[in-house]
Amino acid sequence: MAGNRRIVLAARPVGMPTPQDFRLETADVPRPGDGEVLLRTVWLSLDPYMRGRMSAAKSYAKPVEIGEVMTGGTVSEVLESNSPGLAKGDMVVGIGGWQEYAVLPGSEVQKIDPSAFPPSYALGVLGMPGLTAYVGLLDIGQPKAGETVVVSAAAGAVGSIVGQIAKIKGCRAVGIAGGPDKCAHVRDALGFDACVDYKAPDFQAQLKAACPDGIDVYFDNVGGDVADACLALMNTHGRMPVCGRIANYNDTELPPGPNKVPMVMGLVLVRRLKIQGFIIFDHWHRMPDFHRDVGGWLKDGRIRWREDVVEGLEKAPDAFIGLLKGRNLGKLLVRVGADKA
Amino acid sequence: MAGNRRIVLAARPVGMPTPQDFRLETADVPRPGDGEVLLRTVWLSLDPYMRGRMSAAKSYAKPVEIGEVMTGGTVSEVLESNSPGLAKGDMVVGIGGWQEYAVLPGSEVQKIDPSAFPPSYALGVLGMPGLTAYVGLLDIGQPKAGETVVVSAAAGAVGSIVGQIAKIKGCRAVGIAGGPDKCAHVRDALGFDACVDYKAPDFQAQLKAACPDGIDVYFDNVGGDVADACLALMNTHGRMPVCGRIANYNDTELPPGPNKVPMVMGLVLVRRLKIQGFIIFDHWHRMPDFHRDVGGWLKDGRIRWREDVVEGLEKAPDAFIGLLKGRNLGKLLVRVGADKA
Repeated sequence: MAGNRRIVLAARPVGMPTPQDFRLETADVPRPGDGEVLLRTVWLSLDPYMRGRMSAAKSYAKPVEIGEVMTGGTVSEVLESNSPGLAKGDMVVGIGGWQEYAVLPGSEVQKIDPSAFPPSYALGVLGMPGLTAYVGLLDIGQPKAGETVVVSAAAGAVGSIVGQIAKIKGCRAVGIAGGPDKCAHVRDALGFDACVDYKAPDFQAQLKAACPDGIDVYFDNVGGDVADACLALMNTHGRMPVCGRIANYNDTELPPGPNKVPMVMGLVLVRRLKIQGFIIFDHWHRMPDFHRDVGGWLKDGRIRWREDVVEGLEKAPDAFIGLLKGRNLGKLLVRVGADKA
Repeated sequence: MAGNRRIVLAARPVGMPTPQDFRLETADVPRPGDGEVLLRTVWLSLDPYMRGRMSAAKSYAKPVEIGEVMTGGTVSEVLESNSPGLAKGDMVVGIGGWQEYAVLPGSEVQKIDPSAFPPSYALGVLGMPGLTAYVGLLDIGQPKAGETVVVSAAAGAVGSIVGQIAKIKGCRAVGIAGGPDKCAHVRDALGFDACVDYKAPDFQAQLKAACPDGIDVYFDNVGGDVADACLALMNTHGRMPVCGRIANYNDTELPPGPNKVPMVMGLVLVRRLKIQGFIIFDHWHRMPDFHRDVGGWLKDGRIRWREDVVEGLEKAPDAFIGLLKGRNLGKLLVRVGADKA
């Protein structure tokens, strides 16, 4: 353990983050205190919510400070444990951040069983993105068999699970993704009924054709023009779980007019729509049901899961910028260290 | 019965309706067929939703056609009945329209007991506006004791009931209304904790001061800038039942930019808000509970009810235009005929 390579926030981005907003530095490997564990990072998860933490704006979680290690979910090996119930060699999931070593309270990590599923799944299909898809679709979207479920960012970590659960529940699943390769993956590998490319010039017409009976649930990961197009097709009593707004995360000001709020609210009223935002932290109590259901579907082959792996911590900033630009296909992960020390 | 004076739609309004969009004419008194009743209108209700019916745009109900009698809820006396269970002299509530006489299927009217409450209450506190307030606040808003409930158009038929039920449920009730007279009525006669004048230059500051703990439920009757101001003050897990959008009913195009949709959806996500539109036709099954509760509160003096009465069918167009301009204080009714023939 020569040192702890870590990536800190160097500057608050204005608009799209750049490599200069991050800094790779080497610090001492931290020492675990009472009740704490020393962790060696194996996998780092990169997720769109991190853009929010780079901003000083008030949100549901406190921002990362300048000079502080970037926050992020990790799968790690326990190197030293001062916490009962955790031992050297255990694999755990926690919020270790963008670094090679981390110290966390033992109470803030969960042990994972590497023989059940690949450990990285704890950051994806069996972790926060999977639970987000499960809760947002089932608890907020409440799809009924035969209804049409549309999800944006359909090739991404959350969207790919939303559509596959929708299929399992007997719905028509329509994805929205960027570019023909992602759309082909969503249709052919993930088994959605259709996938529409939001970059296509006739996107709206294609979306309408893919939803001949309208939209009952639109699971919104992106906001912006894509959300507007879906809203226009919503059926009476449609539901719209709002999970993310990647289209607007880098906005430095509101887009130009006209102001479409009256159009949105007019649809909300006339079609009796429900638009509901949610943050997964409010829904941890669903974890046991989620694990049972999604774990079972994974074992049965009814849910497929794809990872997009980047090798090396130093690649994290570029990979994260790529995520915001829609470059990855599947769950974006950084391999920070070997499976075993 | 010399003839049936009635008001028909003469032209589709562009923006705010004008008197020229209506025409008073005299037709033959209609004859009731099998299963039908001949009704003499006593009270005609004027409500903001009628603006929507004057437009050709697709909505939840079909528009009034040019030359057709304007639609509207009425309390009427039965003059002739071919419907079992209804007899000459009965008082009924139904959709008789803007006219002195109407023929309706007996199955489409409800008998009312004029000894229990004034018959006009069936068009207000014990009718569609009251049920709208009850369902929107309790079923969609789900207020808990100690929370802050804000309602716009607080001096109006729906708003005045929303705030009073909020008080009964142990909430802080804050009204929004236009002008000092309405605000004084909302505070002093209706017992809201506060009422803010949306025409005041420092409206936003006043609203914030009136809601020191933020807003948990915003019952939206108006949309527009008032709704934006409330959204900015919503607490985490706040609920926003959307009942009406009178601020935008007369818009001929979307307002100028910036486009505030990303701001609204940003708040929806970060604060986990629920925005839900509703139309009272979907909630008739709540009528028995509503009648029991609100009828009881009326008898106990816990709910107060004010009517704004215009005398004579010919005054209906002007009164309706006044309603859209916020001129009335309390439920707007047109007295079309005497209590008894």
